[in-house]
Amino acid sequence: MVVLSKPIAAFAVFISLVSAQSFQRLGACPDLGCILPPDQADFLAGQRFDIRLEVHAPVNGSEATGNPNPDEKFEFTIERVGGHRGILSASKWFKIAEPKIEKWSFGWFEDYFARDAGKPSIVNVASKAYRKVYLDEAGEYKATLKYDGKTTTAIWTVRKMEEVRKTRNILFFIGDGMTTNMITAARLIGHKSKNGKYLSKMAMDSFPVLGHAMTHSVDTFMTDSANSATALYTGHKTTVNALGSYSDSSPSLFDDPKIESIVELFYRVYRGHVGIVSTAAVADATPAGLTAHTRDRNQAGYCVDSFIHGTPNYTWVDWDGPDVLFGGGAEQFYPGSRSYQGKDYYKEFSNAGYGVYLNNTSLQTAPNTERALGIFSVSHMSKWLDRNVWKENLEKQGNHPSGNRGDATDQPGLKEMTLKAIDILHTRSKADKRHSSQGWFLMSEAASIDKMMHLLDYDRALGDLLELDDTIKASIEKLKSLGELSKTLIVVTADHGHGFDVMGSVDTKYMDAQQDQRKKRNAIGVYEQSGLSEYINTGDLTYSEGSHFPTNWTPRYALFAGTAASTDRRENYRVHEHGPRLPTTNTPGRASNDYYANANDGQPGGFVVNGTLPTDQSQGVHSLTDVPVFAMGPCQELFGGVQNNIDIFFNMANCLGLSRTAHGKGQDPIGN
Amino acid sequence: MVVLSKPIAAFAVFISLVSAQSFQRLGACPDLGCILPPDQADFLAGQRFDIRLEVHAPVNGSEATGNPNPDEKFEFTIERVGGHRGILSASKWFKIAEPKIEKWSFGWFEDYFARDAGKPSIVNVASKAYRKVYLDEAGEYKATLKYDGKTTTAIWTVRKMEEVRKTRNILFFIGDGMTTNMITAARLIGHKSKNGKYLSKMAMDSFPVLGHAMTHSVDTFMTDSANSATALYTGHKTTVNALGSYSDSSPSLFDDPKIESIVELFYRVYRGHVGIVSTAAVADATPAGLTAHTRDRNQAGYCVDSFIHGTPNYTWVDWDGPDVLFGGGAEQFYPGSRSYQGKDYYKEFSNAGYGVYLNNTSLQTAPNTERALGIFSVSHMSKWLDRNVWKENLEKQGNHPSGNRGDATDQPGLKEMTLKAIDILHTRSKADKRHSSQGWFLMSEAASIDKMMHLLDYDRALGDLLELDDTIKASIEKLKSLGELSKTLIVVTADHGHGFDVMGSVDTKYMDAQQDQRKKRNAIGVYEQSGLSEYINTGDLTYSEGSHFPTNWTPRYALFAGTAASTDRRENYRVHEHGPRLPTTNTPGRASNDYYANANDGQPGGFVVNGTLPTDQSQGVHSLTDVPVFAMGPCQELFGGVQNNIDIFFNMANCLGLSRTAHGKGQDPIGN
Repeated sequence: MVVLSKPIAAFAVFISLVSAQSFQRLGACPDLGCILPPDQADFLAGQRFDIRLEVHAPVNGSEATGNPNPDEKFEFTIERVGGHRGILSASKWFKIAEPKIEKWSFGWFEDYFARDAGKPSIVNVASKAYRKVYLDEAGEYKATLKYDGKTTTAIWTVRKMEEVRKTRNILFFIGDGMTTNMITAARLIGHKSKNGKYLSKMAMDSFPVLGHAMTHSVDTFMTDSANSATALYTGHKTTVNALGSYSDSSPSLFDDPKIESIVELFYRVYRGHVGIVSTAAVADATPAGLTAHTRDRNQAGYCVDSFIHGTPNYTWVDWDGPDVLFGGGAEQFYPGSRSYQGKDYYKEFSNAGYGVYLNNTSLQTAPNTERALGIFSVSHMSKWLDRNVWKENLEKQGNHPSGNRGDATDQPGLKEMTLKAIDILHTRSKADKRHSSQGWFLMSEAASIDKMMHLLDYDRALGDLLELDDTIKASIEKLKSLGELSKTLIVVTADHGHGFDVMGSVDTKYMDAQQDQRKKRNAIGVYEQSGLSEYINTGDLTYSEGSHFPTNWTPRYALFAGTAASTDRRENYRVHEHGPRLPTTNTPGRASNDYYANANDGQPGGFVVNGTLPTDQSQGVHSLTDVPVFAMGPCQELFGGVQNNIDIFFNMANCLGLSRTAHGKGQDPIGN
Repeated sequence: MVVLSKPIAAFAVFISLVSAQSFQRLGACPDLGCILPPDQADFLAGQRFDIRLEVHAPVNGSEATGNPNPDEKFEFTIERVGGHRGILSASKWFKIAEPKIEKWSFGWFEDYFARDAGKPSIVNVASKAYRKVYLDEAGEYKATLKYDGKTTTAIWTVRKMEEVRKTRNILFFIGDGMTTNMITAARLIGHKSKNGKYLSKMAMDSFPVLGHAMTHSVDTFMTDSANSATALYTGHKTTVNALGSYSDSSPSLFDDPKIESIVELFYRVYRGHVGIVSTAAVADATPAGLTAHTRDRNQAGYCVDSFIHGTPNYTWVDWDGPDVLFGGGAEQFYPGSRSYQGKDYYKEFSNAGYGVYLNNTSLQTAPNTERALGIFSVSHMSKWLDRNVWKENLEKQGNHPSGNRGDATDQPGLKEMTLKAIDILHTRSKADKRHSSQGWFLMSEAASIDKMMHLLDYDRALGDLLELDDTIKASIEKLKSLGELSKTLIVVTADHGHGFDVMGSVDTKYMDAQQDQRKKRNAIGVYEQSGLSEYINTGDLTYSEGSHFPTNWTPRYALFAGTAASTDRRENYRVHEHGPRLPTTNTPGRASNDYYANANDGQPGGFVVNGTLPTDQSQGVHSLTDVPVFAMGPCQELFGGVQNNIDIFFNMANCLGLSRTAHGKGQDPIGN
């Protein structure tokens, strides 16, 4: 798994230091009294969530008050603005027992100087958690925490929406890390054009509604895929690395305040059918975010367990497992150090009624009437370019999903997995006599757009983006053939970006011929010297009918592309024929977290470029940009214009009719 | 003026070598027979255009045939597919005299090796040009050039659209070089947020319809602002540097095949009122593209002349000058070497009935009933940051528009110019008794988003982007107060992008404290270490009520931003307090076109980064990305989803009801 953040520092001191963040004591907690969900949070009526309160007593550092004892007698009240119940203690409001007081300590670094000096600021904490509560009327709520004579207030908004279901199904595509810039580049290399007019278009280009989504976090302006998955699935922005929960400061990674996800809601309200498909390890943030609730995405074994067992450690909503789970990440399935409690999750899933499939051939024979688990490789699945062009790269990988160190040479692509998932979901939904409410929710993730952008392997990233587009196209055709297209909301978006763009072309032959590192740059053509794309106009590669991919991945005039921040690296702008790019290495004799350009990369003919990223980053990082949102089908009009990423959750929940107020009457004209 | 492209090589040989392009003999001309407009071109019914035919005989190089004499007896026919007129010679089709044959030669470089060797490929040309023709039925046309026993075909499409006017006015904002990434960054530094929720939004964020526009050229996949202005204003993609025309290979820069622009159409069909506003020199590509017709944007004096005199050198459409022309570029107005034929264009405009204004104070007193020329500085106007925060940078510039080498310290901003333009256009349109068709078209350009991105001066670019947004907001309020909002289509878009993004924050204090160049990079925080924007939460700068700009441009934690390709440079990520950034210099003793990092830039505390751009580039370059399109008002629904940039022209023309077929009846329910 790609570790995106700097390692969390661990301290062997008498107090438990669980967090070492720069700049903030605790996210979304500017005062010494903390309410999670924080001020400005939005909710769906009826959506289950936990509340975490923390009262902080800084022992040292810039915020120290001289009193290291947090007020344990803090009070917490809820009031609905304009409501009739008045101000009530939370336990009375939610009609639950008053939770026990909890206590711990943690440390954090106020800035890089403190980090370098190894001097954390220590905070003592008194805390309570209210579990599995919900708000059942639309409107504003005022949550008030009183401690030490001070007050912290959070205004929560329960959004008003019709309790009427408008779509039978949702097909939710996530191009992980995908930006408009990348779609533009993929179109250029995958589609023919003539005198400025494209002769074919991306499937995304034909979606009737386009929006932009803001991806920033609750506590920083950057996000990772865990945080943004949480926003897309729960309507709550949280913290980098957090899945389905806010991040508290407690020692446990599993007691953070949870938020009910779209599939948990869909299952609880309608017993709806759920599919999860990804080209990543299924324990990766984007697939796992649908069922996992932890502030640490790296708890991969737990993430896989959560797919079928939900969250048993605290009272939480019912969950019976998805109908379909396809992807990579076998190391969390075969028994061993990376599976949850060392258990065999192939067996766990099989015992839970799943057919288990370990290659594409067997997957395609799976009955559409049964729940299916498909795990096709150790770690993340192979990339489109390796599965389709340089197939020899599938060999000598030792990544067979059985864990037998053989090669996973028979992996399905995103298209094969997604079409099979639709078949199973459709068949099972139609056959489901137990529940009057039919329909399904399928999340399909093109994960390696992001993973290859991290490695500055733009060709593989764009190959996987074109595979996503091909999957969208084929899914639309499949839904049409099943008679479900008009009953299915299709949304395509991304969780965050990378600062990628294309600025021209590179004459690789000319670059090779230059000996001087500096003169090699003069092989680059910008503006009118960019010429036309040579990826599509020559070459003899062919793909399935109607699929649009480059027919020549090794043109003389290659794309001049880059990212707005990068590690040190060697650039020759050619496709990496022997497998994904490794832009950096740990130089022998230097610190293990000090990364330099990989001398074996960018050969032959490349030149060295020094980066701007921190030298402990081995690969590229995410960027700030708003990401595109494409929508088609019922409720498509909700997704136009500029919105927050949490709005995608609310719009999908609205379209499925998942809002449930105390006095409302949920209507499901679709499912009956 | 920013020279964007590599200099065009000039050869003192007996044949006239006017073009030296890499990779292509002539844009949009893959065969030896060339038709301009080329295959795949789209037209508005009734839109005037020129046709240029060229028959090429390569003398040497890879395409040489052994026959250096181009066929002068070529034939050119037109046929409407499915029409009743059959195949006719062009002169018969258009009922014009057969044009004379023209002959010339030109040279081009087939690649960088040929360029280095100084060995152009020479081409002899036989040519004809058909001037000021038009197609008057919707549908497909087949244009056929027969020469030397060979055939070149162009399929032209006249788009079918209603001949009914749907909007009275169009307000067309162009953020030059503006991308979604930049809008995201500007929102971050200009708008307050709390726990992930913005407390105010960009004006653009509230537009009901969002689209993306593809910006590629007819002959390369990159564009410049001239080419893209031509696409936006005429519906025809052409070649880098070309304004209102395709690029032919002839020696003259003024005989290229012209295309009628949206304002020429609007004036010809309705005698509509036109305003042109830019923060650039008005001779710059984006403003000049509305009236100029030349393949070379650098003909600045001609561009200014075209504003009032149109294109007199060839028979062309009527044009009487805009009602409003506001911007910089005084060097093309006061008499001298940079004005057209050395004339005084303040006098020329005054003689043509314009009030002439050289500062903001006098501009605001201008009567709204009269045509107005406002020129506020030599070259491009000052940037928002210098006009509003570091005002001392307005001094010692010697840029007074009178040409007296004084300082232009009283310049209006884009907002002041645009609001005044609306007042004048509105008043004059209402008062116009001569014509039953009222209404106006105003183009307002935030030019320095692009110009500052070129200089890697992200703060100034984002300041000017926020000024554009503030202008949009104020314009909407102005239109509301005039009762014109519901009768005005507002479109906001860009002509191209730069590969800009934000990846985190920089602790400038920590960076300063590091001596090692490499350790300085560890001052950069990514993901959870990015923290929150400090540009808006502290500081005491205030602006006009309701305006949203950073209140602190010098936060300790600055944006970690960059572009995906760059020159060599020094980075300290701080605002450039003493004026626009100059990232590169010519190092003394080296070639004049060999640019290195400016040692005086990025001080104090910065570190050197080597670039990837060709070393003859002194600044950043454009990027490929699709650009955003925001629309509000009549016809807004036309602008949603992914489209080509030429579609913006067709959608605006459609909304104004500018299509005119032979048998159609133009209707103008708005103007009467």
